[in-house]
Amino acid sequence: MLKSKSIVSIDDVETEDFYEIFKRASIFKRAVKEGKILDLMKGKIMATFFFEPSTRTRLSFESAMNRLGGSVISVSEAKSSSAAKGETIADTIRMASSYSDIVVMRHPMEGAARLASEFSTVPVLNGGDGSGQHPTQTLLDLFTIWEKYGRIEDLEISMIGDLKYGRTVHSLIKALSRFNNTINLVSPEILRMPEHFLSSIKSKAKIRPDSSLENVLGTTDVFYVTRIQKERFVDLNDYQKVIGSYSFNQDLVERMKESSIIMHPLPRVDEIDPRIDSNKRAYYFIEAANGVFVRMALIDIILRGGEYE
Amino acid sequence: MLKSKSIVSIDDVETEDFYEIFKRASIFKRAVKEGKILDLMKGKIMATFFFEPSTRTRLSFESAMNRLGGSVISVSEAKSSSAAKGETIADTIRMASSYSDIVVMRHPMEGAARLASEFSTVPVLNGGDGSGQHPTQTLLDLFTIWEKYGRIEDLEISMIGDLKYGRTVHSLIKALSRFNNTINLVSPEILRMPEHFLSSIKSKAKIRPDSSLENVLGTTDVFYVTRIQKERFVDLNDYQKVIGSYSFNQDLVERMKESSIIMHPLPRVDEIDPRIDSNKRAYYFIEAANGVFVRMALIDIILRGGEYE
Amino acid sequence: MLKSKSIVSIDDVETEDFYEIFKRASIFKRAVKEGKILDLMKGKIMATFFFEPSTRTRLSFESAMNRLGGSVISVSEAKSSSAAKGETIADTIRMASSYSDIVVMRHPMEGAARLASEFSTVPVLNGGDGSGQHPTQTLLDLFTIWEKYGRIEDLEISMIGDLKYGRTVHSLIKALSRFNNTINLVSPEILRMPEHFLSSIKSKAKIRPDSSLENVLGTTDVFYVTRIQKERFVDLNDYQKVIGSYSFNQDLVERMKESSIIMHPLPRVDEIDPRIDSNKRAYYFIEAANGVFVRMALIDIILRGGEYE
Repeated sequence: MLKSKSIVSIDDVETEDFYEIFKRASIFKRAVKEGKILDLMKGKIMATFFFEPSTRTRLSFESAMNRLGGSVISVSEAKSSSAAKGETIADTIRMASSYSDIVVMRHPMEGAARLASEFSTVPVLNGGDGSGQHPTQTLLDLFTIWEKYGRIEDLEISMIGDLKYGRTVHSLIKALSRFNNTINLVSPEILRMPEHFLSSIKSKAKIRPDSSLENVLGTTDVFYVTRIQKERFVDLNDYQKVIGSYSFNQDLVERMKESSIIMHPLPRVDEIDPRIDSNKRAYYFIEAANGVFVRMALIDIILRGGEYE
Repeated sequence: MLKSKSIVSIDDVETEDFYEIFKRASIFKRAVKEGKILDLMKGKIMATFFFEPSTRTRLSFESAMNRLGGSVISVSEAKSSSAAKGETIADTIRMASSYSDIVVMRHPMEGAARLASEFSTVPVLNGGDGSGQHPTQTLLDLFTIWEKYGRIEDLEISMIGDLKYGRTVHSLIKALSRFNNTINLVSPEILRMPEHFLSSIKSKAKIRPDSSLENVLGTTDVFYVTRIQKERFVDLNDYQKVIGSYSFNQDLVERMKESSIIMHPLPRVDEIDPRIDSNKRAYYFIEAANGVFVRMALIDIILRGGEYE
Repeated sequence: MLKSKSIVSIDDVETEDFYEIFKRASIFKRAVKEGKILDLMKGKIMATFFFEPSTRTRLSFESAMNRLGGSVISVSEAKSSSAAKGETIADTIRMASSYSDIVVMRHPMEGAARLASEFSTVPVLNGGDGSGQHPTQTLLDLFTIWEKYGRIEDLEISMIGDLKYGRTVHSLIKALSRFNNTINLVSPEILRMPEHFLSSIKSKAKIRPDSSLENVLGTTDVFYVTRIQKERFVDLNDYQKVIGSYSFNQDLVERMKESSIIMHPLPRVDEIDPRIDSNKRAYYFIEAANGVFVRMALIDIILRGGEYE
């Protein structure tokens, strides 16, 4: 049960919690589409502390809290914060938690969210910490897959692009490995998923490292594409070459299974050609929109628990 | 009808819409003054995306949404946004619109709001784009005139100051030209309204370019003064000279018609002497305050439509 | 009576107001702890204008307004504001007050809040102006003492650290001097409370300047520790020496009275050893959390007045 708990890592979420979150996210999605007014969080306050910019994650959380009838207080830049005056994370989170009922934190330092959860008097949701965890992104990714296929197992998932630094794929592979899935890892040499990370996963899934996009194109159910950051490359020519071979365009898409879907945590830059946005396989905007509903579910389960009819 | 529509340019607003907006703004103005609690936007979310700072416009929109019982999520600086990671306007607005029911956008690039409205799944309100449009400013200007005179035609309006770069006067002259008005253009040589802009307006109004303030002082109903930006002048002496001859002071005001009003989109710097703030003709603070009521009307008409009693 | 009044200085708050604020803050504290939903400020808007960063003060005010069911609009950095375009404080506050029902302002310039209150059409709460006043900090400090001792007189209070620049101690000593208290001033030579400030206070209290921590340790009821800013010292060795002799550690705490409490306006840096956070005398986190309840009381008394049951 997640009631009153902090979510720092996807490991904090049990398998049965997944389905409870999915179910409630579905209900909330329908409610919002129908223009239903929800008052479940009336009188409650969420504090969003973003020590690193992330418009998408922050707004998605704030939208979720507002959709539930709650309020938000927010700090969105490190330099105007108490941290700039030399305050520790422990003291900052004590402040945040004394002003609110739930805290969402993003921090450039790995482990910051875990530390925060230890000193907070209210639940802390990790909105991303360094190259560490980003569990709510994983939950919305899983929900999007579940919504499409009705399950998060017995699927072939191909993770494509930056598997070395990409925080979202690390978290997602951990979750998908709990189940009977086939996971293909497709990336350029210099952006491969680290060995030590792979070996640390207790996996029920069949993981196929170093796959080629060509080989998995026709069998994959879920393509999970990540942003390849220019800054990772010393030589810009190398970047251009990599982008060239991993870019999703119309030619590629037509050779995929009819039922397959393409996901991306966004923002995208050159990895996906905007011309395939209207393709039925393009699920990245649906995925992004699902972030609000999954976060609504999570907030409601943590703060209110019980059932939602 | 404006129901579910985006407002990018003042041209998107039909003449009959003007009166619907004025009527509803009046009702909301009275309701707020009487401390009435409105719940018309309960459960609804406005996203304000300001890629260029504008305290006045942003807060006025946010106040309007709150006064109607709605919530707001907000990005107020470009550098902490996804745009900084290379995201296109199309993708950014898709995000914004999937988190909210209506989006207000300000952007430094002309045409950004039109582009945004094409990719958004919810109505977009242009909060100013480059030297392009700022339609809600025009609506609040018109409402202020309408409130005073009971009409927006058969009036003599003098536009004064920077008519070259001033976005607000471009939008306002377009609107006022639809009706039988006399419009005097008063500006220094280097800040005259561009010929090509003037000739593009299909005008029912009588426009008198290159008027002198002296000549129109005694006949004008509405003085619309704009901020003259120091940055436009290479030579600071030129700025001082211009400010000197266009500055509204007590001496000038006393020679105006009793019934005339002075407007200014604010912030003002040296164009209006603070000593005339208490003069009955000083309407710029009323004008600014009206921004909230006009935006309440616009939001309510677009999102709810129908009637408001 | 504080109804509809601005609070610029602690001198604006009469002695009988103190007790009204304390009483109401107590009631709100219990209500929030019990998860009660308050709707007292429904339909009302607070504008927070922070021209200088202060996460703690801003969020505490915003949390207070949200807890009462009200909304917040906010500007939290000077450079994106109209002030950057050369607007005067008078014009800025006119804008803020036409968009809201109450304005909270922090400004780097001493006297800014007083000026603002003169041009505002709604009550202004000073959230700190330069080295001037910070009255709501003083109110929450007093409330914390009152909560512990049931009174704010007949106490021995020791103020420790930076008594020269520390805005909070200046405001607090003014308030405590109205009553029969003993006030010890403990600071390094270069950070002593200015003579002219001390002589300006009409005091019923017994003030003992230049006290030594050693001498007051066993008799003090309230230790009020302030942050010593590195920037004040030319020589870093001097800073280290000062911090060394004023730092609150376990050894020191054990020699204090059982019933004594340690307060600090936060953020702290090196003045208080985190190992004493769990000591029963550590009241600084309680003090910070009290900020929300005291501000709720103040907002409710100013905007609604009357009684709260």
